Amino acid sequence: MRTTMEVDENDSIAELLRERFSEQSTLVLDLISSPGSGKTSLIEATVRALGKDYRIGALTGGVATERDAERLRALGIPARQILTGGGCHLDARLVNSALSPGGFEGLDLLFIENVGGLICPATHDLGEDFKVALLSVTEGDDKPFKYPGIFSRAALTLITKVDLLPYVSFDLDAVRAELASLNPAGRVIVTSAMTGDGIWQWCQTLSDRLSAKVSVASWVV
Amino acid sequence: MRTTMEVDENDSIAELLRERFSEQSTLVLDLISSPGSGKTSLIEATVRALGKDYRIGALTGGVATERDAERLRALGIPARQILTGGGCHLDARLVNSALSPGGFEGLDLLFIENVGGLICPATHDLGEDFKVALLSVTEGDDKPFKYPGIFSRAALTLITKVDLLPYVSFDLDAVRAELASLNPAGRVIVTSAMTGDGIWQWCQTLSDRLSAKVSVASWVV
Repeated sequence: MRTTMEVDENDSIAELLRERFSEQSTLVLDLISSPGSGKTSLIEATVRALGKDYRIGALTGGVATERDAERLRALGIPARQILTGGGCHLDARLVNSALSPGGFEGLDLLFIENVGGLICPATHDLGEDFKVALLSVTEGDDKPFKYPGIFSRAALTLITKVDLLPYVSFDLDAVRAELASLNPAGRVIVTSAMTGDGIWQWCQTLSDRLSAKVSVASWVV
Repeated sequence: MRTTMEVDENDSIAELLRERFSEQSTLVLDLISSPGSGKTSLIEATVRALGKDYRIGALTGGVATERDAERLRALGIPARQILTGGGCHLDARLVNSALSPGGFEGLDLLFIENVGGLICPATHDLGEDFKVALLSVTEGDDKPFKYPGIFSRAALTLITKVDLLPYVSFDLDAVRAELASLNPAGRVIVTSAMTGDGIWQWCQTLSDRLSAKVSVASWVV
């Protein structure tokens, strides 16, 4: 368990990050899921759809390998791997350190791809605008109630890999009901990075949030 | 990160658990995987295959809900849920407390189903004979190198949900090579709880280990 001092320190840095992102009108999303639910694939699909209209960057968390960041740099966006040295989640200090060398200024959209896991990553404020949870249909329809922390906190949950629905036991209506019970204000989008299902709806949501963010920033100035 | 004192305390309790399990000739496996890779389904398949010949029990870890233990009790085996109160892994103290009320004495085989996650659960000795890692083909073939802690420690890795191989991008040979590189002494079994593929091989491995354990215990007495 985290001490009060650790929480306070994390949240102070997160607040500074949030101010900096706000000044630059950068929309920041913290993507959280089990290993292999499709976080990197989602960012790839988003860059392909929105990369011409928006400046997108990504920080990718993991305990080992540069693979996720390499996949994203191959699409021509700035991406930096944060290796946690065994740690099971990102925190605000790690995000701040990863941004310090520069290269991520003036973005419209910054993805923070958290370390794979549904528990520890859910508990840390990284200065993001909101957290996005991903749940692949192959993981089973009992996961929202089994991991309520993230599914009650995420403003948006993406059900991923729905192209595999014909081959697995997954009750989409039951999951929608679980999510609505845990998180009445949360939104749900059903997607497949393989077929493109739901990617337009996801990108439209991002585009709406980006427009709102820019409007607010202009208005504040 | 854990302090030396925490590691020492955990390992002392784990050693006492190991002695107790050894005295009772109980083979104990710590099952570790991402959420939804099929730990509970594997235990169910094992009980169906070996339940008439061996006394099997299970402790199931999670942050919320009794669902996994309920699924297993429905098969007529003793099963108890360990709720971690938000904690991302089991430890030896939690296992010891869960066993204290009794009901798990004289088992041949005890499964400890860890909390879903590939990082924190890998680091704690629970007094088990060995750790078993599960990796479903839907999680992607890059996971061993991305989560080397568990895949280098597990005596046995089960590749699960191979019935879904035709529908996903997963290079089985590449994963075998990654695992061999991380863990040359480790074994790999390819399974599907849906079709039964590999379940016989898994049960045969357990049966061999159970025979060896009983022989050693008899010889020691």
